[in-house]
Amino acid sequence: MPPRIVVIGAGFGGLWAASALARAPAQVTVIDERNYHLFQPLLYQVATAGLSPADIAAPIRGILSRQRNAHVVLGHVVGIDKARRVVRLRDREVPYDWLIVATGARHAYFGHEEWAAFAPGLKNIDDATQLRRRILMALERAEQEPDARARQRLMTFVVVGGGATGVETAGAIAELVKVALARDFRVINPAMSRIILIEAGPRVLPSFAPSLSAAAQRALERHGVEIRLGHPVTRCDEAGVMLGEERVECGVTIWAAGVMASPAAQWLEAEHDLAGRVMVGRDLRLPGDHQIFVIGDTASVRDEAGKPLPGVATVAKQEGSYVARWLLARLAGMPVPPAFHYRDYGELATVGRNFAVVDFRWMKLKGRIAWFVWCVAHIYFLIGFRNRLAVAMDWIWAYLTFQRGARLITAGDPEE
Amino acid sequence: MPPRIVVIGAGFGGLWAASALARAPAQVTVIDERNYHLFQPLLYQVATAGLSPADIAAPIRGILSRQRNAHVVLGHVVGIDKARRVVRLRDREVPYDWLIVATGARHAYFGHEEWAAFAPGLKNIDDATQLRRRILMALERAEQEPDARARQRLMTFVVVGGGATGVETAGAIAELVKVALARDFRVINPAMSRIILIEAGPRVLPSFAPSLSAAAQRALERHGVEIRLGHPVTRCDEAGVMLGEERVECGVTIWAAGVMASPAAQWLEAEHDLAGRVMVGRDLRLPGDHQIFVIGDTASVRDEAGKPLPGVATVAKQEGSYVARWLLARLAGMPVPPAFHYRDYGELATVGRNFAVVDFRWMKLKGRIAWFVWCVAHIYFLIGFRNRLAVAMDWIWAYLTFQRGARLITAGDPEE
Repeated sequence: MPPRIVVIGAGFGGLWAASALARAPAQVTVIDERNYHLFQPLLYQVATAGLSPADIAAPIRGILSRQRNAHVVLGHVVGIDKARRVVRLRDREVPYDWLIVATGARHAYFGHEEWAAFAPGLKNIDDATQLRRRILMALERAEQEPDARARQRLMTFVVVGGGATGVETAGAIAELVKVALARDFRVINPAMSRIILIEAGPRVLPSFAPSLSAAAQRALERHGVEIRLGHPVTRCDEAGVMLGEERVECGVTIWAAGVMASPAAQWLEAEHDLAGRVMVGRDLRLPGDHQIFVIGDTASVRDEAGKPLPGVATVAKQEGSYVARWLLARLAGMPVPPAFHYRDYGELATVGRNFAVVDFRWMKLKGRIAWFVWCVAHIYFLIGFRNRLAVAMDWIWAYLTFQRGARLITAGDPEE
Repeated sequence: MPPRIVVIGAGFGGLWAASALARAPAQVTVIDERNYHLFQPLLYQVATAGLSPADIAAPIRGILSRQRNAHVVLGHVVGIDKARRVVRLRDREVPYDWLIVATGARHAYFGHEEWAAFAPGLKNIDDATQLRRRILMALERAEQEPDARARQRLMTFVVVGGGATGVETAGAIAELVKVALARDFRVINPAMSRIILIEAGPRVLPSFAPSLSAAAQRALERHGVEIRLGHPVTRCDEAGVMLGEERVECGVTIWAAGVMASPAAQWLEAEHDLAGRVMVGRDLRLPGDHQIFVIGDTASVRDEAGKPLPGVATVAKQEGSYVARWLLARLAGMPVPPAFHYRDYGELATVGRNFAVVDFRWMKLKGRIAWFVWCVAHIYFLIGFRNRLAVAMDWIWAYLTFQRGARLITAGDPEE
């Protein structure tokens, strides 16, 4: 019987590992609790009505349908039994010879998990359609609200966290409410909405070069986003947030500030860092159980300089490919590759129409040319030719018309 | 102050009336409980993973944003006070001088409303994404089911009702499970799924010419759909349906058999037919209250021969346009148009790839040419240029690849 390689999680790490094992003399089983792989970097565009869910999500079974040795299991993992080498799902067990844990990360509220109800984050399609609903419903309620102060509260949107996700989300909300919806209401003027981006640190996009942070901040401000730096959020409730002693009332709060690894460290009873990420060796294996790899946002990996690698798609993909190469070599009786090495090609973030910043490390770009690079890169990396085409078309349409196509309030009674 | 025309419902009837009143010297208020107009004839394609919700839905505010005299209210109507001339929403009232009631229809289970939980129908986007979820989850469960009989039950899909909706839905499910998903599973073979179309009457598509009914039936059977004619459903439960004394076990049941008008007749305390449709005069006004029009699926209107008009989009649109013409004339002090006359251009239904039937009354088409007519007609009638383009692209893609792009299980935990 061929060895059984089990991959938990079909995000960038898990899926890249599974695909690269197509020719492995092994049975590859991919377990995920959802039936789709999600292109998370564009999830905020679903939340801001620019894209449809199916534009950025592809069914895992479809992606792996032609890979003969791949099996897909839709299931919710509740634990891992290292002694018996089985992954425990709610109602069954999946045995493994080799295990790749790539379960990603969740939002973390720095010990205030009760904030999750008031300041949701964006991790899956349902999060995004719910947030789209909250944003559009806030304006619908404002249109019917007789009290001026309550109306202004409903028309205030707060984004917590000034990293790439927070910056892109704030820019997209500004474009949605101030441009796309500008003519849609009769009582309120959506262009008078406030969008406030809160960052606890001294600048937005802290992982980019300081000159790009400054450029992104100016671009956001041109789009009408107010930026509050050096302000940690000390409270979230249903009517707003507290920045230290200051109260900011708002209709919608979006959390883009912190993540916590999935509970894999508990399943594995493994050492982990403060964000819950499992400490792994240079070959991404678990110390003490060499049949188990941990990759992506679930793993704490340091580069040669000892700096932790960021929780981004490129790290996860490269780790997934590395583990697949390692296993292919091992199963073929060849020497395994040396320690994992991350190649940092840089990062990029858009602020909205015609403006992005790109930090290639050896070169920095900002403005329209960077925005063009951003569009091409994101379309290129989208899984599946169909999705690339659909996204390109939605974007060209939005660019030419200033409109947003996916402005639907779904998932429940709009009046709830 | 200009007269206040209030339209309840932004379906085909209400939206066509409101748009045609663009130049009326009146304030036009459109009330709907959802924020989107839905192209219902293609809703089954969202349920069968061919299209995304935003492809067939357009925000009402967006459609009317440039119509200066139009106001949109997102709200749930709970009653109409004819004496005081106000529409009552949950938390406020909207006064009117003229009222157009276009609230559409809901599913009806012939007195067995408890069947709704087991055999849902398709009326809005949430219904469609829920049904998509049920269909895809039935196959996921079958893949993990050890018992052969339970597996076959999960792989059986029952469509109740052989009208255009039922025929198109059955054909689309057959294409989804037997073609698009054919390679996706490792344990089950989705091509072995059973799709059963149940019609109480003697033929499918009863409103089409008998030769077209027969052609559609043969095409469905070629696609692998089993057709059971002359069998009324006598029971629905979570594991299947009863046809008279016969038990059919299935994983998913879809209701396309009967509709009931929305509760407008109760709001209006008006005379209605057995399907709850309000009896109106030849000018679509309510007998006894000449400020109120009732149109679309909410109204019972008969043609010159005394035959009731069907509950289809073209009837609703023509009625909406008629009421707008009537009001424009009246407000201008001109003679109002004579009694409403329905122009029947015919009807069409597709059975899947390369096959449709078109009954133009003066000409009948079937097969590939009819399918082409069907595609062109549906794309043409879709609201909004963007949606037309998106749908055309999804269809071309599906045609060339046999794939389905929108195969996402969303709205809740897939394992629920």
